[in-house]
Amino acid sequence: MHITTLHKDHICQANKLNAFYFLMIFTSSGAGYHSESKAKEYKHVCKRACQRAVDRLRAGGLALEAVTAALMELEDSPFTNAGTGSNLNLSGEIECDASIMDGKSLNYGAVGALSGIKNPVLVARRLLSETQKGKLSAGRIPPCFLVGKGAEQWAISHGIPACPTEKMTTKFSLSGYKRNKRKMELAEQVETKRKRQLCGHENNSACLDTVGVVVVDREGNVAAAVSSGGLAMKHPGRVGQAAHYGCGCWAENARDVSLYSTAVSTSGSGEHLIRTMLARECSTAMQAENAHQALLEAMQNKFISSPFLAGEDCVLGGVIVLRCCTCGEAQRSEDIQALLVEFLWSHTTESMCVGYMSAQDSKARTHISRLPPGAVAGQSLAIEGGVCRLGTVSD
Amino acid sequence: MHITTLHKDHICQANKLNAFYFLMIFTSSGAGYHSESKAKEYKHVCKRACQRAVDRLRAGGLALEAVTAALMELEDSPFTNAGTGSNLNLSGEIECDASIMDGKSLNYGAVGALSGIKNPVLVARRLLSETQKGKLSAGRIPPCFLVGKGAEQWAISHGIPACPTEKMTTKFSLSGYKRNKRKMELAEQVETKRKRQLCGHENNSACLDTVGVVVVDREGNVAAAVSSGGLAMKHPGRVGQAAHYGCGCWAENARDVSLYSTAVSTSGSGEHLIRTMLARECSTAMQAENAHQALLEAMQNKFISSPFLAGEDCVLGGVIVLRCCTCGEAQRSEDIQALLVEFLWSHTTESMCVGYMSAQDSKARTHISRLPPGAVAGQSLAIEGGVCRLGTVSD
Repeated sequence: MHITTLHKDHICQANKLNAFYFLMIFTSSGAGYHSESKAKEYKHVCKRACQRAVDRLRAGGLALEAVTAALMELEDSPFTNAGTGSNLNLSGEIECDASIMDGKSLNYGAVGALSGIKNPVLVARRLLSETQKGKLSAGRIPPCFLVGKGAEQWAISHGIPACPTEKMTTKFSLSGYKRNKRKMELAEQVETKRKRQLCGHENNSACLDTVGVVVVDREGNVAAAVSSGGLAMKHPGRVGQAAHYGCGCWAENARDVSLYSTAVSTSGSGEHLIRTMLARECSTAMQAENAHQALLEAMQNKFISSPFLAGEDCVLGGVIVLRCCTCGEAQRSEDIQALLVEFLWSHTTESMCVGYMSAQDSKARTHISRLPPGAVAGQSLAIEGGVCRLGTVSD
Repeated sequence: MHITTLHKDHICQANKLNAFYFLMIFTSSGAGYHSESKAKEYKHVCKRACQRAVDRLRAGGLALEAVTAALMELEDSPFTNAGTGSNLNLSGEIECDASIMDGKSLNYGAVGALSGIKNPVLVARRLLSETQKGKLSAGRIPPCFLVGKGAEQWAISHGIPACPTEKMTTKFSLSGYKRNKRKMELAEQVETKRKRQLCGHENNSACLDTVGVVVVDREGNVAAAVSSGGLAMKHPGRVGQAAHYGCGCWAENARDVSLYSTAVSTSGSGEHLIRTMLARECSTAMQAENAHQALLEAMQNKFISSPFLAGEDCVLGGVIVLRCCTCGEAQRSEDIQALLVEFLWSHTTESMCVGYMSAQDSKARTHISRLPPGAVAGQSLAIEGGVCRLGTVSD
């Protein structure tokens, strides 16, 4: 097994110590290669999503609102496999998964196999906020996870408008569906003659382009969210990691024994990310001293070589990770609060597009991370990241 | 907060060293009190389920087959909130959750919000075995989690017969629905006048009576499964812990750093069990030296006082836990293999009915565990268990 470690430090030094927040976004983590034309679109949508989150943060919003705003922008892009433009399932329908977690309250909301709603993350967000309102009538506990038709009905009854599937289907998703269907039929003709393959590299190319966001706000709260249209040609009712607690996203503010606040969002082969609980594993790993080393080991030992995926020779996934803690500077002067943010991304897929932006940036930076030439997707990994010191003068 | 620790040791010493296996089953873990009349029924169904598992094990079946057989018996009982006799949801329909995990392969299968199938665990079991067959046509990864209508269609297309909801509805579940509906309407009239309660003790009594099974087989493999009709009057599409990876059940054979094989199954308030990932937490805790102390601490720190449930003053749940390891005896004589099985149950609910049986027993033992008088459900816990040494002469 070949491991590739790239490490660049993107140092963002706070110039004006007036506010802090930091956010990171990914689109896609596909098995597929980001073609140059698509790469441009991905960068654009990442930038727009960053801007949405920043607008919300500058208007006084907290991390939870910022992740929602950014994710809605990503869902609305026809180029991502989330919300509008999602992969069609075996029946030619759109069924979306999304979840969101608040590091401050540790509350969580998720929807799975949801049709007919433009922004699945909005429903997950609403489920989360409903759980904070306490019990329902007759002492019933509010749900944190809803699926299918019931989730759609719940959303509509909570004021989230319905959206016909046709409006969420794009030319691109429809032509992809037709191409995949032909490919499948052809494959089935061939495969009936031999046994089902234990391993196959014919993954639906460019069809894992899901989206995720992690944010730390001016109060130091973290939040994470993820949204996905799921695998192309998935069976109706299939729910992937994006709607699975601990698998699609994780956010936990620092407390007691946890020195660092962490936020993680994942993308890739849903079943692999579920069975390895990758979001939570990465979050737990992030309490180690060296963030880069900890993420590298987590991706290697808890994902590629995970005992939960023994027998899988192609483990596809990607993560974005934020961790932050109050810097030593805070001890030197009581007037200055400073936050050290480490941000990392890692993937075993061919490529992953990330965007990030801090309070001090006037616009978002984007980057397409790729495995180096010769590295085998699903067996090798790339890891990159940076550090950012943010500060604020307290009133 | 009042903690109650009861500890009885049920010592089962192997007389004939000819075979080993051990299984444990619970029905219910309700907020509700097990009335004497219901208690008798629960004990009966536990015994029958134990017998089904043992029949399968004696016929050469492994842990995975035994948990499935026992769980099907529990689902078929009209007295349990799983399969036939499940709680009806807000729309008067049955929607079931179930999952199963194999400690040997670490494979997993789950269904959520599934209607129209008599034995949900059978679908989960089939999903698990399909994942072991490798990829689908065109390199698609088989799903491990299906929900709603899509899950029902998948089951039928895989030869599992459909079952009309009417056949799964019992007089008891229907009268419970009508009673709950009246109670809810009444409560809503009252509650519109005041704010939603942050905490409420008016949980649907006796409506959490879900079922779970853990088994270790003659080869020392563990498996766990769980099945639930979910909360009474739940919103359609609500998925509880029984269909949530790491939350409803967990099974992991001993390997590398893990000295013990562990199997766990949980029941209670689904949302609490999801957010605390109780099954996996208990499994992880079981690697500590003292099983009883480890489970006590896990129930206290990772459940009742979990930071993930801050603000909840009534945390309802129950677990059954098996852990086993090869005894020292194996080192003394190469001809004798011996397995030390520790079995524990713990709950914060009023009561929990457990049944257990080993290879040496001619019939199952059952026990209704209750919180002691004065202890507050959702804030206190009961913990009990035993040790069993099993042996076999190797060929």
